[in-house]
Amino acid sequence: MKKLKRKDYEAALEPMQRELVAMARWARDTGQRIVVLFEGRDTAGKGGAIDAIREHMNPRQCRVVALGKPADTGEWYFQRYVSHLPSAGQIVLFDRSWYNRAGVERVMDYATPAQVEQFLEQAPAFEKQLVDDGILLFKYWLACDQAKQEERFAERLEDPLKRWKLSPIDLAARDKYADYTKAREAMLRATHTDHAPWTLVDFNDQRRGRLTLIRDLLDRLPDTHVPDAPLTLDALAGKARKERFGVVAPIKSFGD
Amino acid sequence: MKKLKRKDYEAALEPMQRELVAMARWARDTGQRIVVLFEGRDTAGKGGAIDAIREHMNPRQCRVVALGKPADTGEWYFQRYVSHLPSAGQIVLFDRSWYNRAGVERVMDYATPAQVEQFLEQAPAFEKQLVDDGILLFKYWLACDQAKQEERFAERLEDPLKRWKLSPIDLAARDKYADYTKAREAMLRATHTDHAPWTLVDFNDQRRGRLTLIRDLLDRLPDTHVPDAPLTLDALAGKARKERFGVVAPIKSFGD
Amino acid sequence: MKKLKRKDYEAALEPMQRELVAMARWARDTGQRIVVLFEGRDTAGKGGAIDAIREHMNPRQCRVVALGKPADTGEWYFQRYVSHLPSAGQIVLFDRSWYNRAGVERVMDYATPAQVEQFLEQAPAFEKQLVDDGILLFKYWLACDQAKQEERFAERLEDPLKRWKLSPIDLAARDKYADYTKAREAMLRATHTDHAPWTLVDFNDQRRGRLTLIRDLLDRLPDTHVPDAPLTLDALAGKARKERFGVVAPIKSFGD
Amino acid sequence: MKKLKRKDYEAALEPMQRELVAMARWARDTGQRIVVLFEGRDTAGKGGAIDAIREHMNPRQCRVVALGKPADTGEWYFQRYVSHLPSAGQIVLFDRSWYNRAGVERVMDYATPAQVEQFLEQAPAFEKQLVDDGILLFKYWLACDQAKQEERFAERLEDPLKRWKLSPIDLAARDKYADYTKAREAMLRATHTDHAPWTLVDFNDQRRGRLTLIRDLLDRLPDTHVPDAPLTLDALAGKARKERFGVVAPIKSFGD
Repeated sequence: MKKLKRKDYEAALEPMQRELVAMARWARDTGQRIVVLFEGRDTAGKGGAIDAIREHMNPRQCRVVALGKPADTGEWYFQRYVSHLPSAGQIVLFDRSWYNRAGVERVMDYATPAQVEQFLEQAPAFEKQLVDDGILLFKYWLACDQAKQEERFAERLEDPLKRWKLSPIDLAARDKYADYTKAREAMLRATHTDHAPWTLVDFNDQRRGRLTLIRDLLDRLPDTHVPDAPLTLDALAGKARKERFGVVAPIKSFGD
Repeated sequence: MKKLKRKDYEAALEPMQRELVAMARWARDTGQRIVVLFEGRDTAGKGGAIDAIREHMNPRQCRVVALGKPADTGEWYFQRYVSHLPSAGQIVLFDRSWYNRAGVERVMDYATPAQVEQFLEQAPAFEKQLVDDGILLFKYWLACDQAKQEERFAERLEDPLKRWKLSPIDLAARDKYADYTKAREAMLRATHTDHAPWTLVDFNDQRRGRLTLIRDLLDRLPDTHVPDAPLTLDALAGKARKERFGVVAPIKSFGD
Repeated sequence: MKKLKRKDYEAALEPMQRELVAMARWARDTGQRIVVLFEGRDTAGKGGAIDAIREHMNPRQCRVVALGKPADTGEWYFQRYVSHLPSAGQIVLFDRSWYNRAGVERVMDYATPAQVEQFLEQAPAFEKQLVDDGILLFKYWLACDQAKQEERFAERLEDPLKRWKLSPIDLAARDKYADYTKAREAMLRATHTDHAPWTLVDFNDQRRGRLTLIRDLLDRLPDTHVPDAPLTLDALAGKARKERFGVVAPIKSFGD
Repeated sequence: MKKLKRKDYEAALEPMQRELVAMARWARDTGQRIVVLFEGRDTAGKGGAIDAIREHMNPRQCRVVALGKPADTGEWYFQRYVSHLPSAGQIVLFDRSWYNRAGVERVMDYATPAQVEQFLEQAPAFEKQLVDDGILLFKYWLACDQAKQEERFAERLEDPLKRWKLSPIDLAARDKYADYTKAREAMLRATHTDHAPWTLVDFNDQRRGRLTLIRDLLDRLPDTHVPDAPLTLDALAGKARKERFGVVAPIKSFGD
């Protein structure tokens, strides 16, 4: 399949974003709680997919959660994620999630095999709790071939805007593509459940991947149509005012 | 001044985003903590400015904080903001901030005059605490004329992607343009301090406004140049692998 | 059985408190996490039992958690409890707990039957998570007859030190003794599990009840003996100094 | 002055505890927020004083906060304390407080001189914030002579119930009595302010010290008398019921 052109991508994305916005209205009006996990290969395109979803949403309703490394306090592994779960009407997008333990922590030996084992047993039970409580939980895993990954690593090295994405860990992970595959398969065997199934999406073409993911997300939500509240903009009472500054004036505008 | 064209905007923005990325590397390496507040008229373009700044940043380093209405628990007004302050190396962008009390809460009578008065007295002392502690604090107020605001309200009514931005409060606020001006001036008189000055930016042209704001932010930061750590991508040991799926296969791609 | 005299109570309590202190040392040294829930009739004596346990413990290690009414945010019911779970080496005593939903909230109609039902289904799964993670979880229900309860309500009315314990809810609950019994039995049927069994303790005699509870708790913990680290107090280098005050002097002592 | 006997202590304490309970009712009814800091020499008796105050209070209203060592995240020093400040109607007792930095952290070199200096400058401003916001803030420093401290260290070594209080840090601090004096004086010079003065209390006799402290606290609060809401206990509708157990029976009582 040919790589999707930007123009075609944007033309296909916009109606989906409208649906997303309508979905958010539905979530707010009905008090739904939505959680979407984004996992996958390094460079697969988690950040871009998240941005495409939240771009037109109210930041007070739709939050992105991107947690750093856990402190070693010995607390219940899921504890720090629980405090970020949505309240009524909220949508939370997890940029990486509790599945770190089954991926990077496993492959890079940050977690012991016993911890990984325990995680794989606990995750389905933890997720069942959330789903039984009525949270709508979606788990996406973004796939890409190693050649594509290499291409993107090289791009990150060159592009100053992306250079920060290249951590020493990423480089160490380059040779571990097969280990990540193995870890993913073990993860799927243990945590692809009826109540919280995984959805894998091909992100070799990131634009196409985003459209695939968003379309799938929308299709798996129930009928979310809630009509807009009717609003009208009456004419202003007086003449439109201009800004007038007393205490502090604006700085000179760019290019002025 | 003519409205900036998209192409010219993007051409000017990219080098600034490179500087932002370099600044973030500096903040991380030196443990700086950076707080940027975004306040201003409804429709001025706070969200767009924030997005332009965070677009290429690590979400684990640069967080957007957009809090909802405070619960009425009687706690210290600044308490819930304090818990979102950055730790070493972090950048926090506040989409609206503690200044809600001096703006919408004052104009819409959500806070009593005594509460507003108290806030205006406390804010400079609170901010002095943060600045004395070494936090780099920047406060931006985004200005626009009422005619421009009306234009954007009308656009929000029409555009399904923006319709959610039109709340009944916004509509009630349309006729209060002058009250907001008055509230802003009182706010500036009380809180435009040497240790934490305000910067006003004209957002009648949002693209130009973003460039103005980002340029100003970059210029007010100290020399933030820290060279990239040298990295090289060695050739992979073996042949690049392809994704192979056992437990679950990817869903059909969009357009397939 | 005769009511236990204070002197006999104290003589029996002290060796148990020594064991509790030793247990706390063991928890700290081995990183154990311990959670004890205290539920039961109004007036049964939860607070007194908790105080007897924590009296000689390090407040930095052993915390009492007594949460107020939940805000109605629609979040996962267990969420606010999760943030109080112990980290490695800590002991948390819950003065009432998530079981509020199956007790007072059910009897006083603060929760809907559906919410209670859902809670009774979720609680065992939630607790299994904690237990599987290695948390040592103990659930105590403190029982007393209604005549005893009435006696204590009367005492609370008379004793200014206890008057605050008499809330209008308590009074409304007086006539609902049988409803509470029924609610407790439903709770036990649903949540007395192999992994997290309940222990009922007769608190008609509160002193005896405390001893019974603490003895049981100690007996159900594994061998917790860890020897004290040997310490010696060498003689001070110089003469013992007296307090000397410059800036501020102590206030006059009571009775001086 | 002779050491106070237990009987005399208890006779003097009870009326004060009644006043404390009345004060708590006042705080709840009027939405007051009260913060009391307990600082002082090792072994002075902070824990005992706190227990005497909270003994008859509602744990849902009066919380003890005893924080461990701060993690080194670079966040604003006061940040983790702020999250424990009281909401309307609450009383918070800090068992050690932000003043750790001016005491143990200074003497034991856990903080750099620059950090200590910064703390001593920031603390008055921080406290002014709280006081200006209406929080009632009381700061107690508990004093005792070194001979008394030595006596209590020896007691801790012998008494298994108190042995945990003897940490290696405490032992290392024994020879630093004069350093602690010096640190306290510097702290008083910098932070004994009009808006948040210190009160020093002689705890060479701990019982007398507690009475002195509580009496002082009560005298410095405004008129806190709020009458109890009138309540009556009507006769029960039926006969008082006895506990009846179906699913699980109580365990055998102690001594049974």
